[in-house]
Amino acid sequence: MTAPVPLSRLSVNQETVRQLSLPDLAAGCVKEGITAVGLWRSPVQEYGVERTARLLRESGLAVTSLCRGGFFTDPEPAARARALDDNRAAIDEAVTLGTDTLVLVSGGLPPGSRDLVGAREHIADALAELGPYARERGVRLAIEPLHPMFAADRCVVSTLSQALDLAERFPAEQVGVVVDTYHLWWDDQAPAQIARAGRGGRIHAFQLADWITPLPAGVLLGRGQLGDGSVDFKAFRALVDAAGYAGRIEVEIFNEELWARDGGEVLRETAERFRTHV
Amino acid sequence: MTAPVPLSRLSVNQETVRQLSLPDLAAGCVKEGITAVGLWRSPVQEYGVERTARLLRESGLAVTSLCRGGFFTDPEPAARARALDDNRAAIDEAVTLGTDTLVLVSGGLPPGSRDLVGAREHIADALAELGPYARERGVRLAIEPLHPMFAADRCVVSTLSQALDLAERFPAEQVGVVVDTYHLWWDDQAPAQIARAGRGGRIHAFQLADWITPLPAGVLLGRGQLGDGSVDFKAFRALVDAAGYAGRIEVEIFNEELWARDGGEVLRETAERFRTHV
Repeated sequence: MTAPVPLSRLSVNQETVRQLSLPDLAAGCVKEGITAVGLWRSPVQEYGVERTARLLRESGLAVTSLCRGGFFTDPEPAARARALDDNRAAIDEAVTLGTDTLVLVSGGLPPGSRDLVGAREHIADALAELGPYARERGVRLAIEPLHPMFAADRCVVSTLSQALDLAERFPAEQVGVVVDTYHLWWDDQAPAQIARAGRGGRIHAFQLADWITPLPAGVLLGRGQLGDGSVDFKAFRALVDAAGYAGRIEVEIFNEELWARDGGEVLRETAERFRTHV
Repeated sequence: MTAPVPLSRLSVNQETVRQLSLPDLAAGCVKEGITAVGLWRSPVQEYGVERTARLLRESGLAVTSLCRGGFFTDPEPAARARALDDNRAAIDEAVTLGTDTLVLVSGGLPPGSRDLVGAREHIADALAELGPYARERGVRLAIEPLHPMFAADRCVVSTLSQALDLAERFPAEQVGVVVDTYHLWWDDQAPAQIARAGRGGRIHAFQLADWITPLPAGVLLGRGQLGDGSVDFKAFRALVDAAGYAGRIEVEIFNEELWARDGGEVLRETAERFRTHV
């Protein structure tokens, strides 16, 4: 029912193949016909932000997003000031890297707190400060709802609905959302919320990973290669397409088994799985 | 703002202190002034269903619920027939034990399936078969929404809203829901859905466990003692009270550290935490 997805829509997030250096990532993508990557701040800073930008430009690779800003929920003034400074630095790095999207992982409950509603308000306060700064530089802040299993320690924004409730307080050019199948696949409200996000022009990124079990200790590295788990990617793509999103689709998998393998082989497999399952 | 909770509302699920035999559980509850327990089928079957019923009756302990029926999502005819037979047996055991509530863990995705919507329909089909059987015996089926991290392998009903969508297809005397803080604490829709459940007379059980991190491998045994984690129990109790629920409140914690301790000590601690945090 859905037309086959062209490989030109694939972007591979560098954490999917974190065993690859940036030059090897760039060369591997070129070899497999992959035309875009998603980046993380820490390996980019290690290699050098300007140097990364030059490498990717010379390789003809687009940058779909930079991960990550966020961690806005600690109300302690010094922590809050540090978080805002760090997010402004992330926005600047996004500009240098030539991407228009900074992914935000909003932060968990502050230490000792049980106040989810209050923590979400701290996020709104930070977005109000950062939105204009980002907008002036052509960068959009993309709130990523994380699976509810991360609500305490990583991100109090657990559903696309909550992310949109936050984003819609600001212009779509400043603040949007990430649609990530790993975090949203279980939610029967996701289809309606994807449509809502599309109507508002707020789908700033579309990311894929599969849901596999059993989850490992700490659950962070439990994501699966496309096709290995429970996610119906074609159904998700149909929803996101129908919502008017025509941009790149980023594969972002954290999985120690993938990291232990040859990175070039994982890139090839990812492109194949993308063609077959998405 | 909420009146202190009387100890007479506390029920301790036997899995919280699974290191205790049924006689030791009964004696320990009597010693601590705890007047009710929740039961699991497998330890009860080992001790004997009639024998358990007699023990608890003689100890003056009420039985708030029996865990668990369910696992309705496999559409294969023989598997489906076995599941229905097993659930009728669970209903009969509930009758013998003198509890009016059978907790249902509905089941995950069938092997190889990615169809959450279809799996939920299999649950509705099973409820239609079992509801009248349960009702004739004075037992209510209580759908327990499980945290979304269990959607693939344990329970495709992930929110109270989804549970009520299923339950409301049947009379409240046949099918209701379990409100469990561990599974629902992250959900900003939970307050409205608790009110909806109360209006319909469908809160058949109220269970407590705290959310602690990091989650262990497999995540099943990651529940925390009351007060050790992120859940605001007083807020939850206020919601459930306001929804008209005046029944017992069951503490159900699966945690290997609690199981390694002296069971009597854990019972005492649970009663103290209940007084302080609920």
